[in-house]
Amino acid sequence: MTERYFEDYQPGAVFTSDAIPVSKVEIIDFARRYDPQAMHTDPEAAANGRFGGLIASGWHTAALMMRMFATSFLAPESSVASPGLDELRWHQPVRPGDVLSLRVSVIEARRSRSRPGEGVVRSLVEVLNQRGELVMSLKPVSLIACRPR
Amino acid sequence: MTERYFEDYQPGAVFTSDAIPVSKVEIIDFARRYDPQAMHTDPEAAANGRFGGLIASGWHTAALMMRMFATSFLAPESSVASPGLDELRWHQPVRPGDVLSLRVSVIEARRSRSRPGEGVVRSLVEVLNQRGELVMSLKPVSLIACRPR
Repeated sequence: MTERYFEDYQPGAVFTSDAIPVSKVEIIDFARRYDPQAMHTDPEAAANGRFGGLIASGWHTAALMMRMFATSFLAPESSVASPGLDELRWHQPVRPGDVLSLRVSVIEARRSRSRPGEGVVRSLVEVLNQRGELVMSLKPVSLIACRPR
Repeated sequence: MTERYFEDYQPGAVFTSDAIPVSKVEIIDFARRYDPQAMHTDPEAAANGRFGGLIASGWHTAALMMRMFATSFLAPESSVASPGLDELRWHQPVRPGDVLSLRVSVIEARRSRSRPGEGVVRSLVEVLNQRGELVMSLKPVSLIACRPR
């Protein structure tokens, strides 16, 4: 993993991730715990529903996004916390067998007013499937430590 | 579970959930899969970090929120989908042993222009801990089927 600090997140910089597959078993397992709706847990009921088959919980897609965000954008030596995010959108369903990857573009990076050793990075996160279709997007804020002097 | 349709989500209506506990084992298990940062996976490293101890991934709190949202606000006969959400904020850390509950307030409810049998419900979701402190909030949009005639 590349060592990164606040100074490495310049507006316009783009970070990409490795692709990760999404299995039917994982979709059902996640949904049984956290989003027990038939479109996510019951393949037969889902086949007769709006989406014509099982789809991942949007929060499962979000969790997979975070795995890629943690390993491809954030870095352990400088990731501090996140106060939140704006404009989360689910554009397309994620289905069993889909393969997801991440593209993160830095929108804004500024030094923190309250904590001099940290910066505030706002980014556009796009989750793409194996056909390059946008399935989810959001604009998170990340607090990132500055490089030690 | 109470049968609910679009007509039952009136602006100003408030829905609450049962409380659910968050265990250390679940925090670490979720984070190893979806948010592998030491503050969420390694109690010793977390004790020396910003938060003075292990805290749940914000996406784990979000997943637990969805479990309560699915069972206390949405209803299987009318829940269609969600296009997204705005203004997600993590206000306070969630720690092992915390007990979370939900308060959902309907902000806006309107019939869909493109799908006559459905409505669009915008709500404020607040996740509270056992001390009544706000730990997370967001404003999701839910597509909800109208009552059959």
